Amino acid sequence: MATLPSVSYSITVRLELDAHGSAVSSLTNAVEHVGGIVTALDVNSAGHQRLRIDVTCAARDTDHAQAIVAALGAIEGVSVHKVSDRTFLMHLGGKIEMKSKVPLRNRDELSMAYTPGVARVSSAIAANRDDARRLTIKRNSVAVVTDGSAVLGLGNIGPEASMPVMEGKAALFKRFADIDAWPIALDTQDVDEIVRTVQIIAPGFGGINLEDISAPRCFEVEARLRELLDIPVFHDDQHGTAIVVLAALRNALRVVGKELGEVRVTMSGAGAAGTAILKLLMHAGAKDVIVCDIHGAVHEGRDDLDPNLEWIAANTNPTGYSGDLRGAVRGADVFIGVSAPNVLDGADIAEMNEGSIIFALANPDPEVDPEIAHLHAAVVATGRSDYPNQINNVLVFPGVFRGLLDAQSHKVTSDMMVAAADALASVVTDDELGPHYIIPSVFHQGLSQRVAAAVRDVALRDGGTGTPED
Amino acid sequence: MATLPSVSYSITVRLELDAHGSAVSSLTNAVEHVGGIVTALDVNSAGHQRLRIDVTCAARDTDHAQAIVAALGAIEGVSVHKVSDRTFLMHLGGKIEMKSKVPLRNRDELSMAYTPGVARVSSAIAANRDDARRLTIKRNSVAVVTDGSAVLGLGNIGPEASMPVMEGKAALFKRFADIDAWPIALDTQDVDEIVRTVQIIAPGFGGINLEDISAPRCFEVEARLRELLDIPVFHDDQHGTAIVVLAALRNALRVVGKELGEVRVTMSGAGAAGTAILKLLMHAGAKDVIVCDIHGAVHEGRDDLDPNLEWIAANTNPTGYSGDLRGAVRGADVFIGVSAPNVLDGADIAEMNEGSIIFALANPDPEVDPEIAHLHAAVVATGRSDYPNQINNVLVFPGVFRGLLDAQSHKVTSDMMVAAADALASVVTDDELGPHYIIPSVFHQGLSQRVAAAVRDVALRDGGTGTPED
Repeated sequence: MATLPSVSYSITVRLELDAHGSAVSSLTNAVEHVGGIVTALDVNSAGHQRLRIDVTCAARDTDHAQAIVAALGAIEGVSVHKVSDRTFLMHLGGKIEMKSKVPLRNRDELSMAYTPGVARVSSAIAANRDDARRLTIKRNSVAVVTDGSAVLGLGNIGPEASMPVMEGKAALFKRFADIDAWPIALDTQDVDEIVRTVQIIAPGFGGINLEDISAPRCFEVEARLRELLDIPVFHDDQHGTAIVVLAALRNALRVVGKELGEVRVTMSGAGAAGTAILKLLMHAGAKDVIVCDIHGAVHEGRDDLDPNLEWIAANTNPTGYSGDLRGAVRGADVFIGVSAPNVLDGADIAEMNEGSIIFALANPDPEVDPEIAHLHAAVVATGRSDYPNQINNVLVFPGVFRGLLDAQSHKVTSDMMVAAADALASVVTDDELGPHYIIPSVFHQGLSQRVAAAVRDVALRDGGTGTPED
Repeated sequence: MATLPSVSYSITVRLELDAHGSAVSSLTNAVEHVGGIVTALDVNSAGHQRLRIDVTCAARDTDHAQAIVAALGAIEGVSVHKVSDRTFLMHLGGKIEMKSKVPLRNRDELSMAYTPGVARVSSAIAANRDDARRLTIKRNSVAVVTDGSAVLGLGNIGPEASMPVMEGKAALFKRFADIDAWPIALDTQDVDEIVRTVQIIAPGFGGINLEDISAPRCFEVEARLRELLDIPVFHDDQHGTAIVVLAALRNALRVVGKELGEVRVTMSGAGAAGTAILKLLMHAGAKDVIVCDIHGAVHEGRDDLDPNLEWIAANTNPTGYSGDLRGAVRGADVFIGVSAPNVLDGADIAEMNEGSIIFALANPDPEVDPEIAHLHAAVVATGRSDYPNQINNVLVFPGVFRGLLDAQSHKVTSDMMVAAADALASVVTDDELGPHYIIPSVFHQGLSQRVAAAVRDVALRDGGTGTPED
């Protein structure tokens, strides 16, 4: 599981060196010798004596980037001028902006977009509040709301530090579904305050995407907001993940020729994502599931269960298994991990049922080394982009919200999520389907539109009376 | 003060009529006969027998637009097909959008703007929170916050109906100062909740523009937020208006050759705008001011004073005048009205001091008919775009926030506001200055940049220790 160099750790090194025949190759050799990958090289000033060159290369991490710079600086005659981090350069001043859709070139245009003309539009909405979905950005806007408590794998880094992630999310909403999302990073981690704040700012938005709020608070925040608001509330870490997992599992089961209602599923992790995956799989027909947390299988005999785990104990583990994860994996058809690195090894996978399916989603280090899992399992998926079958939320959240907004839906239901998963799964044709291709790329043409259409159809069919999520 | 037709009430009427020599002129004659102004006419399908024509014309108001349509329909042989309201068409789907500034064309770009690359940027901000102003939209973003309680002249129309105004404001921020503003319409009118909500959502913004919050709640909301937040809080209805009034007054005094410290100023209106104007004029040097509200002059002998009026009584009206507005205007040099229509007439203006200055800012109907005021006063300004000298907040709020953001200012002070007013006033050169030109057009090239530079310089000079606004 050695990490490969990635452009996400890409640096550009500006340096000068003596002009001679092997000047350029001395640079590329040095970078490659320490394991970096040269992705661009620009000679931007050449004299008789000295060359000025920008070398751009991918590194594994910060230490590796420093090692590359050191290797370049150690070449005889080279002086390093400046090291730029491409990722930081991309973030300068933020990644998103607000644009006006109306021209404001002269007084006439001003008088339509602003006073006095705008007063008639406001009056129309005051007379009929639903017109806000026709005459304002509410039609196409989503608030990306976080409290900064569980940001990526970084943990509780607070609202300011969460902003680059939320801006990235907003950019993805636009890129994949033409949605206008704006980040709202909250300076509170109190459940009551989060709920009340989102409720208060909701009028201008057509949907709420909760993001990176830690469990178990995220369950209560979401459940209460769904009760209070007349726009859909979606916690992407839970439901986005659940939808992609269900889609991938549908296709993995197609590969091995099994049915969801008949397989035994063992899960590792009962946090936000794990719980949402569990509930969606059960809504879609899974019957035999055992969930393990750090203390082993969740069962009704345990006395350390919070309300969420109590629900899991009451609704899963039909045989009352009370052992550990390794025991629960034995004989299982499917393993889904949303927990911690290296909780299983090759021997565990070997003891699973024939044609086993492994979704090891802990990031960056999965629950089991995917290369070792592959020796024993039929299908392996991870959360990483450097292995086949990446389980990636970007596959669904843009399309889900596109469908919800297009239907002007007041909520998001489990039926809509199953429809989204089925639409995503169906993008992979029978011809394409195989152990290494159960899930398409996020850049697959028309993907979000397929997901959006499926969600929209269910939302319109249910006309506001669909099954509420759990 | 008859209202003129305006494109803000512009309609496009699609109709068919018999093809004959005077077909088109019969339409334009009909529109003009009822007082409309034809601004465009498109023959979009012509046959031997019938013509299909789109007639676009400006009307005074909704009734007038209906009268125009009726006049067109009454022409023999004309059938009206469809009437489109250009202002409503412009608002369909809202007036602003979110745009990504980074390309997301492939996995490499995704891995820099989102996971895993974004994690390093978030970590940098977690280590040094100030980096949020360098690496996120906080550097250039302003929340336009309202509770919908005092929207334009429409009153308490609620958050949804306020959105077209807030979107227009955001569009103006971009147009005139390249600022990324996003509307936040609050579903509460409770002062404590407004304050707490803005505080909670503040981390992602570099400034807060409060908008259309009714007095006296706006005073408390603003004062408390200024205490709580480390970003500038500006209530445009108060301070934007005050800055433009001070700028216009500076130039009006240039016209009549008087000094601010020596003139007598009578004000009508002690609401949000009136109070802010009063305080800024006094900060800039005005000494002899009488403020009247609906009960007459505000003085220390009155027993009906709220805390705001108590402050006014204690700090103005040095002679303790206790009569009505008409009496207070007698002998005054300057009248500033931010109150109600037609509280003064020509006789009142005639009794003012020689070279009197009238700012009658009630909208749409000023405190005194500007055409009558002109018979007696040296300089007349209104809030209307169809008279010279329009006092318009758009002249300052974009530049003020540009300057605040560029200085990364933690607050906005009265010194900065006076600097903004002086910069705005200085845009009018001595050659240009005259009774009909004391204030430039909002489209004056470089205007916001001048205001921004003045605000930024004071903010940087004071280095976070400037005089807090009152």
